[in-house]
Amino acid sequence: MTAPDPAGFHPAWLPPEAFRAIGSRRVLVFGDGLLAETVHDEVARACARFGGRVRRGAENEPHDLVLALTTVEVLPGVAGEVRPDSATGAEGYLLARRDGVTVVLADDPAGLLYGLFHVVRLGESAFTGERPAEHHRPATRRRMLDHWDNVDVHPVMGQVERGYAGGSIFWHDGAPRGDLARVRAYGRLLAACGINAVAVNNVNVHATEARLLTDRLSDVAAIADVLRPYGIRVHLSVNFASPVALGGLPTADPLDEEVRKWWAGVTERVYDTIPDFGGYVVKADSEGQPGPFAYGRDHADGANLLAEALEPFGGVVHWRAFVYNHRQDWRDRATDRARAAYDHFAPLDGRFRDNVILQVKHGPIDFQVREPVSPVIAAMPATRLAVELQVTQEYTGQQRHVCYLAPMWREVLGFRPWGPDGDAVADVIDGGDLVGVSNVGDDPYWTGHPLAQANLYAFGRLAWAPRSDPAAILDEWIDLTFVPTASGDTEPAATGEIERLRRTLHAIMDDSWRTYERYTAPLGVGFMVRPGHHYGPDVDGYEYTPWGTYHFADRDGVGVDRTRATGTGFTGQYPPPWSEVYESLDRCPDELLLFFHHVPYGHVLHSGSTVIQHVYDTHFAGAEQVEQARRRWVEAAGLFDPSLHARVKELLDEQVRCAEEWRDQINAYFFRKSGVPDVRGRRIP
Amino acid sequence: MTAPDPAGFHPAWLPPEAFRAIGSRRVLVFGDGLLAETVHDEVARACARFGGRVRRGAENEPHDLVLALTTVEVLPGVAGEVRPDSATGAEGYLLARRDGVTVVLADDPAGLLYGLFHVVRLGESAFTGERPAEHHRPATRRRMLDHWDNVDVHPVMGQVERGYAGGSIFWHDGAPRGDLARVRAYGRLLAACGINAVAVNNVNVHATEARLLTDRLSDVAAIADVLRPYGIRVHLSVNFASPVALGGLPTADPLDEEVRKWWAGVTERVYDTIPDFGGYVVKADSEGQPGPFAYGRDHADGANLLAEALEPFGGVVHWRAFVYNHRQDWRDRATDRARAAYDHFAPLDGRFRDNVILQVKHGPIDFQVREPVSPVIAAMPATRLAVELQVTQEYTGQQRHVCYLAPMWREVLGFRPWGPDGDAVADVIDGGDLVGVSNVGDDPYWTGHPLAQANLYAFGRLAWAPRSDPAAILDEWIDLTFVPTASGDTEPAATGEIERLRRTLHAIMDDSWRTYERYTAPLGVGFMVRPGHHYGPDVDGYEYTPWGTYHFADRDGVGVDRTRATGTGFTGQYPPPWSEVYESLDRCPDELLLFFHHVPYGHVLHSGSTVIQHVYDTHFAGAEQVEQARRRWVEAAGLFDPSLHARVKELLDEQVRCAEEWRDQINAYFFRKSGVPDVRGRRIP
Repeated sequence: MTAPDPAGFHPAWLPPEAFRAIGSRRVLVFGDGLLAETVHDEVARACARFGGRVRRGAENEPHDLVLALTTVEVLPGVAGEVRPDSATGAEGYLLARRDGVTVVLADDPAGLLYGLFHVVRLGESAFTGERPAEHHRPATRRRMLDHWDNVDVHPVMGQVERGYAGGSIFWHDGAPRGDLARVRAYGRLLAACGINAVAVNNVNVHATEARLLTDRLSDVAAIADVLRPYGIRVHLSVNFASPVALGGLPTADPLDEEVRKWWAGVTERVYDTIPDFGGYVVKADSEGQPGPFAYGRDHADGANLLAEALEPFGGVVHWRAFVYNHRQDWRDRATDRARAAYDHFAPLDGRFRDNVILQVKHGPIDFQVREPVSPVIAAMPATRLAVELQVTQEYTGQQRHVCYLAPMWREVLGFRPWGPDGDAVADVIDGGDLVGVSNVGDDPYWTGHPLAQANLYAFGRLAWAPRSDPAAILDEWIDLTFVPTASGDTEPAATGEIERLRRTLHAIMDDSWRTYERYTAPLGVGFMVRPGHHYGPDVDGYEYTPWGTYHFADRDGVGVDRTRATGTGFTGQYPPPWSEVYESLDRCPDELLLFFHHVPYGHVLHSGSTVIQHVYDTHFAGAEQVEQARRRWVEAAGLFDPSLHARVKELLDEQVRCAEEWRDQINAYFFRKSGVPDVRGRRIP
Repeated sequence: MTAPDPAGFHPAWLPPEAFRAIGSRRVLVFGDGLLAETVHDEVARACARFGGRVRRGAENEPHDLVLALTTVEVLPGVAGEVRPDSATGAEGYLLARRDGVTVVLADDPAGLLYGLFHVVRLGESAFTGERPAEHHRPATRRRMLDHWDNVDVHPVMGQVERGYAGGSIFWHDGAPRGDLARVRAYGRLLAACGINAVAVNNVNVHATEARLLTDRLSDVAAIADVLRPYGIRVHLSVNFASPVALGGLPTADPLDEEVRKWWAGVTERVYDTIPDFGGYVVKADSEGQPGPFAYGRDHADGANLLAEALEPFGGVVHWRAFVYNHRQDWRDRATDRARAAYDHFAPLDGRFRDNVILQVKHGPIDFQVREPVSPVIAAMPATRLAVELQVTQEYTGQQRHVCYLAPMWREVLGFRPWGPDGDAVADVIDGGDLVGVSNVGDDPYWTGHPLAQANLYAFGRLAWAPRSDPAAILDEWIDLTFVPTASGDTEPAATGEIERLRRTLHAIMDDSWRTYERYTAPLGVGFMVRPGHHYGPDVDGYEYTPWGTYHFADRDGVGVDRTRATGTGFTGQYPPPWSEVYESLDRCPDELLLFFHHVPYGHVLHSGSTVIQHVYDTHFAGAEQVEQARRRWVEAAGLFDPSLHARVKELLDEQVRCAEEWRDQINAYFFRKSGVPDVRGRRIP
């Protein structure tokens, strides 16, 4: 991995060296149109650097790689006998190698682009031996990043809400940044990991951001123009009260005829300006945002209003299910925030229009390091669902801690809400949407922590293929990002060096999510972070607040009773077998125990440890693992660009400090409360 | 009390009606100079309103009131036989009534002004019967308000740090406000309660504020010009690093010759511009402010540097003793913030120049609702000391809660650090300084909460006469503020109405400090406030932070062991008998128990209650008393100006809500931790 280049940003997983294999070959590109141009230009740039050559159209000359649209008549012999045995489908492609020629065929120009990046990932191995035809298709139709970027700097949240990588790549202090080169580079990186949709502003839509829909639409169009060549559509977060705020109407009532007309007219103008506009993203009646409740309407009324306006143009509404009472009285133990999304939305199943996509956070609370999968995902068979993941590390170390999130996401996607014989979450969103909250900013490394680039990459790759192995994705990312340049910018690295580099990164990253879990809130109980910024520990920080995130620790025990028998009844929102598994103190998985049950400190886990001893053990272990990660990193100094190495080292220092702070606060808190000493006699302050 | 007048601010304790008695009399004023002019103008304005008349000089005509400087030859008969039997001293005056003439005599024009306000306070009773000669002199030489006002709006602290009454009356968004009428009115109010010095900017001196010393000195001079007619000198908070930041020197080392010259030159220019400038206020080596430690020097070196520069002009340095480690490791139980001021300063006793005034917060921590008196006050016999009180209600309800602070201050001033036969704190500062952090802002009522005006008034009156009775001061304040206008602007109120009004305010205010104590942090343990803004409860908010303010509650007990026997040894900073009283679990006063001792929840107080039951009882009682105060206020609606009544009612609603929140959080916290039920079976959430 190199240092940021003179353009001011780091190449991430597309350093020039990643194109060496293609760039040193003879390449034919067949096909016309914007995305085929992109493919050609990518190849041409690589060839200019590494001595290969690229030709357009059906020239009959020696070649090593063919990238062709199936709609184009390709001369026999050019692609050998390679033919798709079925349609590749939108965005899909066929990859094969026969008789010394590597072939990528696609029905659709986007497929050609994704096929190109597949060849990039393969590197030299794309050009050796034979390769039987493989059909590749994305599992999901929309692989989308939501940017929580504000146009105006928000007085509390700043330029990017929950952003840990500097300013926004789109906006600066009320205006577009203007630096479209960076947006273009971003689009290229996204295409290379399979992302095809971006929402360009925060779901909390304040006054200035609201105007992107109308008089500032040209700012959005400028971004769309730059992302379009990489097959990425732009979406816009809109304010539900726009008819009042922007349109001067007396109401935003979704059943009001004038309101419907207003949205229809505004939406038509959006499509006049941006013909491939993706649609609207809406956070309504949530944490202070306006919504249909103000007019006595429900969320189906609200979502359908916008869907109706978008329908003629093929646009969609992403309607967020993150709706709960954020002014709860902490004294009220009957209200359970975990229940809120299901209680609000499950009764509406079947009432949403076809182009409404209900966007559901993966867990019932809010992107904690460990949550059960949201029961909403299993509750709405007649509704199109998107699952929302948080790539930005709000609750997982804020891009100051190494926390490779793909293993968590893979668990979510592989979870089977109806039990072992039923569908997985990945099946529910098959052909649908996976949405991630972006973790990039104007930081030179894009993501603050250089290793957090892997989360962005992995999000895209999992959205494309939700059953991928996180360790394999990490290998891909390592190979693209570090291997071409491990020992310098020009020569491939030595094999031994590459192996050491790979082992170092796997040792630091593979288990980093579980490590983070070990030193933070235990056993699924969640939160325990400092209110407001959400960084670092504060066990009681949210315990007596209106936010609905409690742990109920007392001198005898800890955890939230969400059973039907004696608690809030949240377990009843799951279908069997999980409704029974979570209900049962015996069967509930250890890692979610305190999410579902309030137990005495002496309760014995399946692991054989008591809850209190588990707290001590995991916190000592987690902090020690971070210390080990730092040692590994220090030992690997020679394998990385020095400035990148120094930056990660500095961040690991902070992670060690913070993990020890977590360890000591959590342990001290529970020791003071329980009075139970550590059986191993370690020091608890 | 009337509503704010058309000038935009409320008359507070100087409504026009308060001058009715004087204004309807025949008055002679003898004396020349600025302050005598002020006296004359005050009387003239009153007479214009109420039909009396005022004459200058020795005119021989019938008169009811004479205000005369003793330096002026007064015609025999004008003052009758009234003569001072000794010098009145600076700011002192003699008051008498003989043969139908009320006489005020003073050696010094300031005394004449204070005498005038004494007659204002007396009202009609100044003009009835005979009154033997009374000599009045302020106990303290300097009665000073420190404004923590920023010139620039601070991104976190705002325009006024710990200000709860809107913006600054001096500064707005980087510039002087320009509204000198308001500053003039402020000076008049201060003179009427005896204050004679004001520091016009925050002790945390940021970049813009630092420049008040040099290129923005004219901003300070403009304030000085307006306050001078009321006998008030201005002081300036300065940044210790000014020689570097403003002077371009390579160092601010107090022993560096160039640094000394720089301060001498700058100070000379200050006095060229403001000949009666009071001096500098310095917060050094504290909470991030620069200081002598950076150069390996101590606080005596630092303070003496500035004192030397000020000495030729009669100026003083207020050097704050609020120095402690605000980056303490919470795991370190040996470090005790309470010890810090003594540990830093006591060894320096005798090393400060004569014009250094060491400014000591009244308690060892930071203006908590209950603290012991700072041991520094008894530890530095060879140093001039100022005691610092906090009129702004940072930790006592932030001017949203009624909390009349005079009873707390009176306890501090009456405390005898050397035991019952020794001097009181009031004796230590006799002839010296009492300093308060101002509670005013650009709010129409000056202080946010209209009843918080009483704290400002009482501060001035206690600074003048530290042995005053807080209830008597409250009566004065009520009589000036409310009585003249209780039933309208023009006619004196009916006696019955006045009595009801007085009873209402005493019922709400007399015990309000103890009420506040009851529903907040118990038994002297302190803090338990929300970090940052310090409003509302958060029991563990500071428990695991670097700020040094801990309670160490665990399942068995609570409190900080500051004994010599087993704790931090802080008790040893007191002289006997307090070193023994505080050391002893048996003798330590209940209200300070948890400040000095860590005790089990079952520990029995002198009151006969256990600690845990005391916590429950006081919290239920405190919240109930606030509810009672609200009832009293509602019942008294007809006695007050409606808009003022409505504002106080709204604030009392918030106080009720907040007191219940405190009650429930504190009780729940300790119930969860101790497991001890309330013996009275009340609901603890």
